[in-house]
Formats: sequence, C-alpha cells, structure tokens
Amino acid sequence: MVKIRADLIIHNGTILTIDDEDSVIENGAIAIESDRIVAIGEEDEIRIKFSATKNINARGGIILPGLINTHTHLAMSIFRGIADDMPLDEWLNKNIFPLEDEFINKNSAYWGSLLSCAEMILSGTTTFCDMYFFEKETGRAAEKIGIRGIIGEGIVAIGESDKAIWNNKKSLTIELLNKFKKSELISIGVEPHSPYTCSADVLRESKQFAKENKLLYIIHLAETKKEFTDFERERGMTSVEYLDTLSVLDENTLSAHCVWMSKDDIKVLKARHVKIAHCPQSNMKLGSGIAPVAKFLKNGVTVGLGTDGAASNNTLDMFSEMKSAALLAKVANLDPCVVSSRETLRIATIEGAKALGKEQEMGSLEIGKKADLIVIDMDKPHLMPVYDYYSHLVYSAKGSDVKTSVINGEIVMENRKLKNIDMSEMMKKVKMISKKISKKDKA
Amino acid sequence: MVKIRADLIIHNGTILTIDDEDSVIENGAIAIESDRIVAIGEEDEIRIKFSATKNINARGGIILPGLINTHTHLAMSIFRGIADDMPLDEWLNKNIFPLEDEFINKNSAYWGSLLSCAEMILSGTTTFCDMYFFEKETGRAAEKIGIRGIIGEGIVAIGESDKAIWNNKKSLTIELLNKFKKSELISIGVEPHSPYTCSADVLRESKQFAKENKLLYIIHLAETKKEFTDFERERGMTSVEYLDTLSVLDENTLSAHCVWMSKDDIKVLKARHVKIAHCPQSNMKLGSGIAPVAKFLKNGVTVGLGTDGAASNNTLDMFSEMKSAALLAKVANLDPCVVSSRETLRIATIEGAKALGKEQEMGSLEIGKKADLIVIDMDKPHLMPVYDYYSHLVYSAKGSDVKTSVINGEIVMENRKLKNIDMSEMMKKVKMISKKISKKDKA
Repeated sequence: MVKIRADLIIHNGTILTIDDEDSVIENGAIAIESDRIVAIGEEDEIRIKFSATKNINARGGIILPGLINTHTHLAMSIFRGIADDMPLDEWLNKNIFPLEDEFINKNSAYWGSLLSCAEMILSGTTTFCDMYFFEKETGRAAEKIGIRGIIGEGIVAIGESDKAIWNNKKSLTIELLNKFKKSELISIGVEPHSPYTCSADVLRESKQFAKENKLLYIIHLAETKKEFTDFERERGMTSVEYLDTLSVLDENTLSAHCVWMSKDDIKVLKARHVKIAHCPQSNMKLGSGIAPVAKFLKNGVTVGLGTDGAASNNTLDMFSEMKSAALLAKVANLDPCVVSSRETLRIATIEGAKALGKEQEMGSLEIGKKADLIVIDMDKPHLMPVYDYYSHLVYSAKGSDVKTSVINGEIVMENRKLKNIDMSEMMKKVKMISKKISKKDKA
Repeated sequence: MVKIRADLIIHNGTILTIDDEDSVIENGAIAIESDRIVAIGEEDEIRIKFSATKNINARGGIILPGLINTHTHLAMSIFRGIADDMPLDEWLNKNIFPLEDEFINKNSAYWGSLLSCAEMILSGTTTFCDMYFFEKETGRAAEKIGIRGIIGEGIVAIGESDKAIWNNKKSLTIELLNKFKKSELISIGVEPHSPYTCSADVLRESKQFAKENKLLYIIHLAETKKEFTDFERERGMTSVEYLDTLSVLDENTLSAHCVWMSKDDIKVLKARHVKIAHCPQSNMKLGSGIAPVAKFLKNGVTVGLGTDGAASNNTLDMFSEMKSAALLAKVANLDPCVVSSRETLRIATIEGAKALGKEQEMGSLEIGKKADLIVIDMDKPHLMPVYDYYSHLVYSAKGSDVKTSVINGEIVMENRKLKNIDMSEMMKKVKMISKKISKKDKA
C-alpha cells in the first residue's frame, strides 16, 4: 500500500487531545500536512497510512495542544522587574506611564515583543492575545519567530480629544489589517483600554468598527476595587452594567481580569456571552483581588487564561499561571475540589481558543485543526512517578519542561532551541535598550 | 606573593550575600576550603590571595545561598499526583493514609526520598527539614546525593497506646541520633505530628526528650479551619494556646502552616520565639486557607518557607513557592507592598536558617559559614533585562534556572548534572514502585 506523504509526524508520546471527551491516546502519533493536523491516533495506525519528511520522537513525553495566553502586553517585558512591590498608583503613574512615554518606540516594541515571544514559545505558548502600542512591531516579531497572535492598539481616549485619538487608533488598526491581511499567524483586535479610560462615544464607535470588520473587542474590565467603587459612586452602576448600557458586550468581547463582580455582573457577562481573560498572577501581584473563577465556570461563562504583561507578573509562563489559577481558586473558596487540573488545562487550551473565537481552528488536537502543539519532556524527577497526566501538567510541570513546539505546522522550537531567531542578537538588543532605561531610572 | 590554596573558587557572578545589609557583590568570587566559605569579595581581590584546585565560572549568573525548605515529607513524592482536587478528608483518609499503610516501607522511603532530593537540588534547595516514616532511609538518600537536612520520625500517638507508640518513636529517634552522629549533613528532629494527633503526655514527653538532646521540635499547627474550630469547641482555646499550656512552645519549636491564627496566637508565638514553616502552595491546593504572613513579619515572628510534601503541592520547587508566598500575601491583603521580593528571598534563605536554628551555619554567604550555595543562569529570555536581582529571583526565575549547586563545600550538581547518583537507576526504581501502586489504585 502506498503511504500518504505528510510533512511532519510527531510520535512516541501520550497525546492529550483536549477534545470534547478529553480523549487520551497512549503510544500516539500525529501527522501534519502543511499547517493542519491530518491524522491522529495510535502510532501503529498512523504509520500504516503515513510516512513523513520529518519525524519528531516525543520519547515518551506528552503531546498537548499549544497553550493559549489570552492577555498580554508583550513589549512591556522590556520593563520586567523595574517596579515591584508598590501601590498601584505609584507603579502606574510614577513608573510605568513615564517609562512608556520615554522608552516605548518602534525599536523597543519590536525587541521587547520578540523577547516575550521567545519566552512564550520556550514555555509552551503557541497563541497570544496582545494589547499595547506600536503593535505592528509586535506582529512583525511574532511572524519572525513563528508564533500565532492577536494584536491590537491599546486605546486610551477620554476627555476633549477622545474622538481625535480614536480616529488615529482606527487608522492604525486599518494599517494593521492591511499589513497582516495575508498573515497566517497574525489577526487584529480592537482594544479600548478600559471603561474608565475611554469615553462612551469611543467605546461605542470602536465596538461598531469591530463589528463591521468582524474583529474581537478586547477590554480591561473590573480589575480593581477602585474601578468598582468609582463606578458605583459616579454612575450608580458597575462597570459591567455601564458597558452593557453602551451595547458593547457580546460574544466577540473579551474582557480581561473581571475581579470585582457583583452577582448581576456575572449574569450579564453570561447573558451577553462575553469571554473572560483570567490573569491570576497579575491580580495577586498588584494586590487587585481574586476573580470568582469557580463561579464563572459554574455559570458556564467562558474563561481563558492570561499572564498579563511581564511588568506585573513578571513572567509569561502559562504553566506557572495554570498552577496559580487552580490553587488560588481553591484557597479563595476554601475548597480543594474547585477548578480541577482537568478544568485548568482546558482553560489554558480549548477554552482560551473559545475566548478568542478561534475554537474551530485551535485549542485541541483534532483532524482539520491548525497544527499548534507542544511536546513535554516527562523524563525529569519533578514529573515522576506518573499517575495522572493532568495533575502533572498543572501542578508539577514548568515551562522549561516544554521540549518542542509546532505552530501552524512549523517546528519553531526543537529540543529547546528556537529555530527562527538569533537569540544572542536579541539579547544584545534588549540589553542595549535596558541600559538606557537603567540610566534614566537611576537619575 | 604565595597564594593560598582553596579547594574551590566560584567566580564571574553577582553575589547576593543575604547578609544583614543584603550586600551585593558585582563581579564577585567565593573561595571555599573543605566545607566552609573562606573568602568572599570582588573577583580581583579573591584572585590575588587565592588559587583553587577547581574553579566554577558562573558566567555572569547570580550566586546565592542555597534555598532552605523548612517543611517536607520527602518520601511522599512516590504519591505525586495520585489524589488531587478532592476534600481533605477524602484525600487523607481514603487515599493518603491507606496508600501509606500499604506502600511506605524501607525501599519506597529510600527511593521516594532520593527522588525528592534530586528534585530539590535541581531546583536550588540545599537544606530541607523533613517529617515522615522510615526516616533513616531519608537520611541515607540525602547523604547519598549530598544534600543537607533535618530528619525526624513523625509521631501520631493518641488514645490508649499513645505511650507505647511514643516509646517506639523515641527508640527510632535514638537510632537516628546514633546512625547520623558523625554526619556532616544530617541532623535529627523530634516531630509530633500535631496537637490533635498526639496526646498531651506525648506532646510533653517528646518536648522533654527534644530539650535533653538539644533537638528541634517540629509540629503541624493550625493548618485547617477544622482544627481551629474543633479546639475552640472541645477545649475552649486555640491549638496554639493549648500547646502553650503544655509548655512545648519555645525558640526550638518549628510549627508548620499556622494558617488559622487568633490575634493572641500570633502574640503567643512571638512571645515564645516559636518559628513558622510557611507552606503557601500546600495551603492553597488543599483549600486550607491563607496564613497571615504579613502579620507574622510585622510582629517579628521568624518565618521560613516550605513546600510541604509532593502529594499536596505537587512539587518541591522553592522558586515557585517563593513566588506564591509573595503573591498570595499581596492579594490576601489587597496590598502589593507587603512581602516584597527582598523579604521573600530572605524567608527562603536566612530566615529559613533561623527557623531551623542554624543561622550561624547557613542561610547567607559569609566567611566561616558552610559552603551551601547555588548559581543561577541568567542568560535566558524570561530573566531579561535585569533591573533588580531580587525581583527576578522571586517573580521570574524557575527552579530549572539553577545551574550549579554546592553543599557543604561539595559540588553536588554542575551544569544541571547531579554528581552523586545514577539518575536512570533511580527513575527505574521509582517506576517499579509506582507500578505496584497504580495497580492497587485501579483495583
């Protein structure tokens, strides 16, 4: 029998498909043709039908859908660790905002984003969803290294010049749409920063623009107690209710954080099919609070997982984030049963894909889906012995256990070596930028 | 000038000494003679005075005191991931206790402990404090791999046979004292499991025995809400107050967890100079609650950090634990300023040494102290750029960034290779044990 020629076969691993039945395939193999999964099953079956140009031996490791980081500010890695352990106001107004004003430009946005993309691939992320400035550079960096992502210009537009700022951001968004029109990796979002940093008009108009162009609408929502109490005092409603009065909440809205929620807020999010990007480590580190994730899940609200920016986390490691998500929910509820390892792994994969409106394309390993997957090296003391794969991936594995990463059918990392970038050049550039920032910081 | 011959010089790194002034030495070097640090300073100064048989180039990394894990149950790694996401009662009574009864023996205790020791060294721990069974095996494993530790038989002795059990445990403890009398790595603790699993007599008598032999007295304390409310209901006092009435609380008492604390409890712990082993990830994962660490620190109570056993964490990675400790305290207080990265790193090093009563010997890099240190490889995307070493170590580093480990002057890991054990033999043995457990588990 003539075998079908595939581009790539990954074999000799345990496949966690994260399909609807959470099917697990021992001694599994996956055949990839171009950017898609064309076959998945036991290695013996796959070998009968397929041969491949390139084979990757998982050596008894776990083969898993790539992790989906639903909330990032990639270029901010350039500020990693520059300002910690301080009140939110001081962090934002005396540190981050002035630093951004002075040091975020095309050059730093590119190299900061590339640094983040490198970190993400090295720790198992294959798709991100970003909000920041100079996003064209972020898109360029992502394409260079070969990672999938949604990019979008953060919109801060309130007060007299709100419309002018929005018009400018709209132009930038149209530029992004044109630039990445044919990209297989990059898609575009419309990203008003928050209900309190954009005027009602801008929130509405940007939603209208997102609808016309079928784009995801991404916004920070109910992150801090201050936001919650300010809205209550100033408008007599929550920020969720406020956005609902503007009719910007729907199934294509992704709201990051959602920490401070009234009971009705959860009902509104559910009724409008709004998706949530849950960022536990950032919420913890900034002292923002604990998002009611167990309640979201109980109410059937779609929750993805996000690391937020490296300035408030300070890593982009989704394995660490998964563990924090599960553990924080348990202690917040004084209940070890909530947010199980199995649920958590779904949140970081298929539910993340749903949060981005891309569950037809990614988030699980199934025939016809994009070939976005990672291989975990299980041959390590901290991953032994094995009784439960889900437990190990959520509670014991580290980003550094990811050995190989395939995105859109391309091997972007093999045996922990990134294939598409010159790491030493990147590190040199990042150091040059940080030297300038350090000088300023000490002045 | 004739140079002094040292056994080992570690150079070309940034030294975080964790001394009283948190001194940092850029371009630093450390000279080691036998088991002690004999010189520490800038590389140029050290090189003038010393030459060494062996040199380790830190290649621009960070040189740090080894991390001190103040609460472990090492052999339990054999059960890693076997029972998660379930109520504490079901976890303990239907899973852990029956599994221990059937599968913990000399063989599994040795290989389980060795597995844990391997994981600990690979993630930067140089000293642990253990409580479990067959502790002679744990001591043997620790000596084999070259890690420092306190070991002690866990005492569960309540009801009619309490005295008989204690006498047996006392004999075992005396055996341990004899067996490890000359050990440079292993010392012994007296370890009643908890105020509710030992009778008052056993708690008192074991304390007396600890005093006579100048041993640390280690006990679980106020871990769960159930313990707190049970004591209140049954005795009209907290478990801390109860132990105080028994006169077992003093500067040589190390109490693990201390989650459920009345205001007076903190005062009692402070007044008696009791030390705390804080285990945030275990407390989170079991849904036990949040220990008031910021309050402990504010009140000057000594706090060390512990991972607890791998059955309730599920790793022994102190880097991950440090991040959780800092982040959990911030979110619990809705205050990003508490438990800073600098404080956290002290908790995991010098404060841990104080918790074990060993601060004269370890916990910081100073002349005359034991040479227990680790080298962190900073040449990685997730640790770039560098503005603040403490921030990176607590918020960004992973256990896998530890490149080299020296314990008691011996290089036990170099370039991530463990020197003293046959890793594949260990993994084979662990797999054999876990296969038997799996069969039982599925039956």
